Amino acid sequence: MFMESVDGRRRVVIEAVEPQVDAGRFAIKRVAGETVQVAVDLFGDGHDAVAGAVLYRHESRREWSSTPLRPLVNDRWEAEFRVEETGAHLYTIEGWVDHFLTWQRDLRKRLQAGSETEVDFLIGADLVEAASLRAPSEDAARLREWANALRERLDAASALDETLTAIVLRYPDRTLASRYERELRIVVDRPRAGFSAWYEIFPRSCSFTPGVHGTFADCARRLPEIAAMGFDVVYLPPVHPVGRLYRKGKNNSTVAQPDDVGSPWAIGAEEGGHKAIHPQLGTLDDFRAFVAEAREAGLETALDIAFQCAPDHPWVRDHPQWFRARPDGSIQYAENPPKKYQDIYPLDFETSDWRALWEGLKSVFLHWAAEGVRIFRVDNPHTKPFAFWEWVIAEVKRQYPDVLFLSEAFTRPKLMYRLAKVGFTQSYTYFSWRNTKAELTEYFHELTATPVREFFRPNAWPNTPDILPEFLQIGGRPAFMIRHALAATLAANYGIYGPAFELCENEPRERGSEEYLHSEKYEIRQRDWDAPWSLKDYIARINHIRRENPALHADRRLRFHPTDNDMLLCYSKTTEDMTNVIVVVVNLDFRYRHSGWVHLDLDALGVEAEHPFQVHDLLGGGRYLWQGSRNYVELDSHSLPAHIFRVRRRVRTEADFDYYL
Amino acid sequence: MFMESVDGRRRVVIEAVEPQVDAGRFAIKRVAGETVQVAVDLFGDGHDAVAGAVLYRHESRREWSSTPLRPLVNDRWEAEFRVEETGAHLYTIEGWVDHFLTWQRDLRKRLQAGSETEVDFLIGADLVEAASLRAPSEDAARLREWANALRERLDAASALDETLTAIVLRYPDRTLASRYERELRIVVDRPRAGFSAWYEIFPRSCSFTPGVHGTFADCARRLPEIAAMGFDVVYLPPVHPVGRLYRKGKNNSTVAQPDDVGSPWAIGAEEGGHKAIHPQLGTLDDFRAFVAEAREAGLETALDIAFQCAPDHPWVRDHPQWFRARPDGSIQYAENPPKKYQDIYPLDFETSDWRALWEGLKSVFLHWAAEGVRIFRVDNPHTKPFAFWEWVIAEVKRQYPDVLFLSEAFTRPKLMYRLAKVGFTQSYTYFSWRNTKAELTEYFHELTATPVREFFRPNAWPNTPDILPEFLQIGGRPAFMIRHALAATLAANYGIYGPAFELCENEPRERGSEEYLHSEKYEIRQRDWDAPWSLKDYIARINHIRRENPALHADRRLRFHPTDNDMLLCYSKTTEDMTNVIVVVVNLDFRYRHSGWVHLDLDALGVEAEHPFQVHDLLGGGRYLWQGSRNYVELDSHSLPAHIFRVRRRVRTEADFDYYL
Repeated sequence: MFMESVDGRRRVVIEAVEPQVDAGRFAIKRVAGETVQVAVDLFGDGHDAVAGAVLYRHESRREWSSTPLRPLVNDRWEAEFRVEETGAHLYTIEGWVDHFLTWQRDLRKRLQAGSETEVDFLIGADLVEAASLRAPSEDAARLREWANALRERLDAASALDETLTAIVLRYPDRTLASRYERELRIVVDRPRAGFSAWYEIFPRSCSFTPGVHGTFADCARRLPEIAAMGFDVVYLPPVHPVGRLYRKGKNNSTVAQPDDVGSPWAIGAEEGGHKAIHPQLGTLDDFRAFVAEAREAGLETALDIAFQCAPDHPWVRDHPQWFRARPDGSIQYAENPPKKYQDIYPLDFETSDWRALWEGLKSVFLHWAAEGVRIFRVDNPHTKPFAFWEWVIAEVKRQYPDVLFLSEAFTRPKLMYRLAKVGFTQSYTYFSWRNTKAELTEYFHELTATPVREFFRPNAWPNTPDILPEFLQIGGRPAFMIRHALAATLAANYGIYGPAFELCENEPRERGSEEYLHSEKYEIRQRDWDAPWSLKDYIARINHIRRENPALHADRRLRFHPTDNDMLLCYSKTTEDMTNVIVVVVNLDFRYRHSGWVHLDLDALGVEAEHPFQVHDLLGGGRYLWQGSRNYVELDSHSLPAHIFRVRRRVRTEADFDYYL
Repeated sequence: MFMESVDGRRRVVIEAVEPQVDAGRFAIKRVAGETVQVAVDLFGDGHDAVAGAVLYRHESRREWSSTPLRPLVNDRWEAEFRVEETGAHLYTIEGWVDHFLTWQRDLRKRLQAGSETEVDFLIGADLVEAASLRAPSEDAARLREWANALRERLDAASALDETLTAIVLRYPDRTLASRYERELRIVVDRPRAGFSAWYEIFPRSCSFTPGVHGTFADCARRLPEIAAMGFDVVYLPPVHPVGRLYRKGKNNSTVAQPDDVGSPWAIGAEEGGHKAIHPQLGTLDDFRAFVAEAREAGLETALDIAFQCAPDHPWVRDHPQWFRARPDGSIQYAENPPKKYQDIYPLDFETSDWRALWEGLKSVFLHWAAEGVRIFRVDNPHTKPFAFWEWVIAEVKRQYPDVLFLSEAFTRPKLMYRLAKVGFTQSYTYFSWRNTKAELTEYFHELTATPVREFFRPNAWPNTPDILPEFLQIGGRPAFMIRHALAATLAANYGIYGPAFELCENEPRERGSEEYLHSEKYEIRQRDWDAPWSLKDYIARINHIRRENPALHADRRLRFHPTDNDMLLCYSKTTEDMTNVIVVVVNLDFRYRHSGWVHLDLDALGVEAEHPFQVHDLLGGGRYLWQGSRNYVELDSHSLPAHIFRVRRRVRTEADFDYYL
C-alpha cells in the first residue's frame, strides 16, 4: 500500500520546470560562462509559506550547489546559475514548507489585527531553537539566545528582528523537502561552440600554379589571409583518398576524364579510407603542419566526416557485411530514385554487424581527434540513425569533451532538430533560403525565442559548395554583402564557402540549379584572391565588429523591431548585463536604395524614451543622434546595405558627449 | 559501451506524443465510449518509408490492440481509438522502417523515369517472400505465389498489384520497430463523470413543519421534485454528528444559542465522527433508505467528505498525534490569520503517524462506498497534501473503480489543476465569478481547448452555500436564469445549491460579502418550494434539453463564435459525428434587451454557406431560417435570456422542410 521510499509528508509540488528538452530526455546546451535561467511552478497545500532552491552540479562532482528560488506571480519561481566548466552538468529543484516563514508572516497579520497571543511568540521561539540545531556553532549560539529572548519578552520587535531572521533563513528545515522527479542535463561546451566564424576551403584549389592540384602546404599559405578576414575556423572538405571506381567528372558528369580529380565525398581508394590522407594533398605530416600553422594564425581546423564509401574503399573489401547486397550479388549504391549515385556506397546500418560498424565509425573520429582535430562537420547525418549519433557523440566527448560537431543536415525540420537533440553542437539551417523580412523574422524567432534555442545552435551559411542560392545568382555583389551581414549578425555562428563567396562567384551550372558551374566538388579551381570586387575587406570589418561586441556572441537575446518598409529588417542583440547593445538594420533589396522608419523597443535596448541616445554605425562609421522609438534610416545596398549600430546611451550634452556605454 | 538491451538498428524516432499530461506523469481522462485521438511525430533517418501504430490496452489485459497511424504533414501522424471499459488503460506508439513500402514507392519513380532494372523486381520479390513468412497459411500462400510471379514476369503490373499490396501491409516487419519510451495512462470513468447535473440540498431544512430539524425521510419527499427538474446527482453536505464545542451560531456567530444546529462541516461529537450519522437526520437505516429512494427516482447520492474535526470529534481523543500541539499544550485550531476557526481542528499531515492517518481517512471513503455511495464531493482538498489525494483516490478506485471524486478547491489555478492531475474526477471552477463575454470565452477556452482538458473536468456552479456571487445579488431572477443557462450548456457537468437557487435567494449577509444571509450552514431554513417565481420549470426545460442532445454531454467540442454585441455570447457544441449540433446564444445583461449579429463558423457546425439552414430554439420553441455566417438575434433577459438552438441542416424546400438532422 505504501511505497517504502516515499515520505507522504513531503508537501511541496514541483512542476513545469524550464528549461528542459522533451521532459529531460535530452540535455540543454550552454557554453562555459553562460547562465542557466530556471523557472518552476512550486507550491504546497494549504496556507503555509514555501521556499525552494535550484540544485546544480558538474557531473564529476557529488555535492550539489544550491541557489534560492525567487517567487514571481501565479506560483511561478525563478533562479539562475552560471556554468563555468565544459562537460555535463545536472540540475534539479528542491522545495519545502517553511514553518518559520509561515510563522513570521502570520504573526505580522496578527499584530496588525491586534490578535496576537502569548503562545504565538512561543511557537516562534520553538522554531528558532529548531533552526539553531541546524546551524554551525556561532550562528547556533545566536539563535539559541534569540529563542530565549523571545520566550521572555514576547514582543513584536524581537520576533521580527531582521538580522536574526536572515540567519534563520540560512538553515531551513529541508527534512521534508520535495525533490523534482528528474535530474536535468546541461551539456556545456567551450565558448567556440557558441561563437564562431567558419571559412570552408578546398585545399586542392590552392595551388599557385594553374592546373596543378593544390596541397596542404599551398593551402597553408592562404591561412594568413583567411585569418585577416576575421575567421576562426578553417573547414576542409574530406581530405581522404578519392575513389577511382565510377569517379565523377567535371560538373558532376558520370564519365570522368583521366585527369579528373573526382569528388572528395567519394571517399576511399586503394591508398586508404577515412583515416588516410589523399596523396595529392600531401602526407599525414603535411596535414599536421597545416593544422599547426592554422593554429598559429588563430584558426582552428575543422574536418569533414562523411560516412559513405567509394566502391574502392577498403571497407567494401574488408567489411562487405556493412553494405547491403542486392539479389544479384551487387552492392546497393546510393540512390534517390530516379537519381543514382554509383560512385558512393551507403553504409547499411541495419546490418547484423552494426556494433562493429558503429565502433569502426567511432574510431574515425577518435583517429582525427588524436591528431588534434576538435571540430567535425558531419556530412548528411540525417541519413544515418539518430541512435548512432547519440551514442557516438557521447562516446567521443567522453574522451575529448572539447570536440564540437556541426550537423550538415538540410532536411525536414523535425529531423534537423532531432540531430541537435541527440548531441550535435551546431547545426546548418534554412537561412540559405530565407530572404524576406517575414521569413527571416519568423525563422530566427523560432530558433532563438522558443524552446528550440535550448538544444539547437544555428550556424548560418549564405553559400556552401552545394548551395548557390538564387538570391546570390540574381543579386550579385550587393546580394553577397546583404547575405553576409545577415549571417554574421543574426547568428553568432556562421560560415562561408570561400573564396567563392568573397569573390561573388554566382554562376549556376544551369538555370534553376543551385549547383555551381565548374563546381570545386568535381574539379580544381584557380582564382585571383585579390580581385578588385572581392568582399574581403567588408567581411574583415564585419568579423572585427563581431569580435569586439559581445552582444553578437550569442543568439538568445536577438530581438526584431518593426520597420515601416518591408525591405528594411531591424533587429538588436544585447549582452545579459546590457553593457553592449547592437542594433542592426539591413536593406534586403539588392537592387534599390530604401529608406524608412524603425520602431525600436527601447526597453529591450535599455534606452530611456525621454533622453536622446547616440547610435554609432560600426560598419559605415556614421554617428546618429536618435530619440524615442521612431527613427529614420536610409540604406543603399550598392554601397553599404547595412548599419551595425552600437547604441551609446546617456548623451549628457550635445557639445560634450559623455557616454556611459 | 553498448547497452545490452538496445538494438541500434531501430531507426524510427517517436516524439511529441499527444495527449499526455506532464510527460506521462499523470493519466489523461476519458469516459467509457469516448475516443482518444493520438498525434505523434514519427520519422526515420534517410529516405526509407516509415509506418507506425498506436498500441493500447486495458491495464487488466496483457495483449495490446493496435491501430495504424495516418500521416498528416511535417512528419506528424495521427490515429484514434475508443475506450469502452472503465478503469485504467495504457497506450503507446510503435514505428518502423517499411522496406516494402519503400520499394514500391521507389519502383513507381523508376517506372516513371523508365530506369527500372531486373534487380528492382527481384528485390521486391524477396520482400514479398519475407512477408509470406509472417503471414498465416492462406495469405502466406498467396504471397509466395506473388513473389514467384514477380521473379518470372518482372513487370510493373505484378509489382504494384493493389490487392496483394494490401495483404503485405497486413504483415509488416516489426522486428526492428521502435517503441515510444513511455506507456501513457488513461483513466476511464463511467459516463456520469463526463455528464452530470448536481443538486445540493441540506436535509435539515427539509422538514415540512416550521422550526423542526429535517431528516433524511423529509428530504426523501423532495426527491421526486428534484428528479423532475432533471438532476441526476443529489449532493448532501456532511451528514455526520455536528460538534458542540465552540459551535457556531446563526450567521456564523461565535456564540451559539442552545438550539443552534451548528455547521455540518464542524464534524464529530460524542455520537461519532466521519463514519457516523447525525442523530437529528436519522439513523444509518434512514440514510440507506434515502439512498435507495433517490436511486429509484433516478438520482445518485453524493456525499461531502470534509477531512477536519470539531474539537469533540472522537479522533481528537483517540489520535491526538493527528493534530498539531502548540507550546502551551493546546491543539492548533484552523486559522487564516487574523481569522480563527476555533470550532475546527485541521489534521496535521506532517505527523510522524501519517501512515495511520492516511489509512484512517481512506477508511472513511471505503466505509461510505460500502454503503453504496459512489460519488464524493471533497471539501477543500487543497488544504491537504497532493500526495495524499493521489494515493487515496487510487486506493479507493482499486476497490471501487466507479467512484467519482469532485474537488471543491476554490484556490489558485495551479493547485486546482494539480488536484485534477492527481486523480479528482471533476473540479469546481472559477465559473462562479466569470460574467463577461471576454472572461467566459477566455476561461472556457482554457478549460476545453488547451491541454488542460486532458485532466481537468469542469463542474460549473452558479452558486454554492459559500458563494452567492454579486451578479446574482444584483441581477435577481434574470441573473439566475442567465447563470443557469450558461452553467448547463457551457459545462457538461454543473450543479446548483437549491432550493436557494431556483427560488432566486440573493440576500447577502452584508454588503460586499458572498455569504448568504441566514445561511443554511448555520441554521435551518424553511421555504415555499412552489413560490411563483421559482425557476424549476425553466431548469427542468434546460436539463431536458441537455439530456436529449448528446452535443451537450461533453466539453471538448465547445467553440465560441464572434458576435458584434459584447452582451451576446454565442457558442456551439457538437457530437464527434456531427449528428447533433447545438448553438447557444446568451444575453449576459440581466437588465436590458440586446440584439446583434452572430458570426458563425459554419465549418464547425457542418453547415454549408450556400444553403439555408434551420435553427430550432429548444428553449423558447421558435424556429428561424438562417443562411451564411451572419445572423440576427434578439434576447430579452427578463423573459428568456438564451436561445439553445438545435441546428437542422439541409432545408429542402421552404414549404416542405426535409431535415437530414
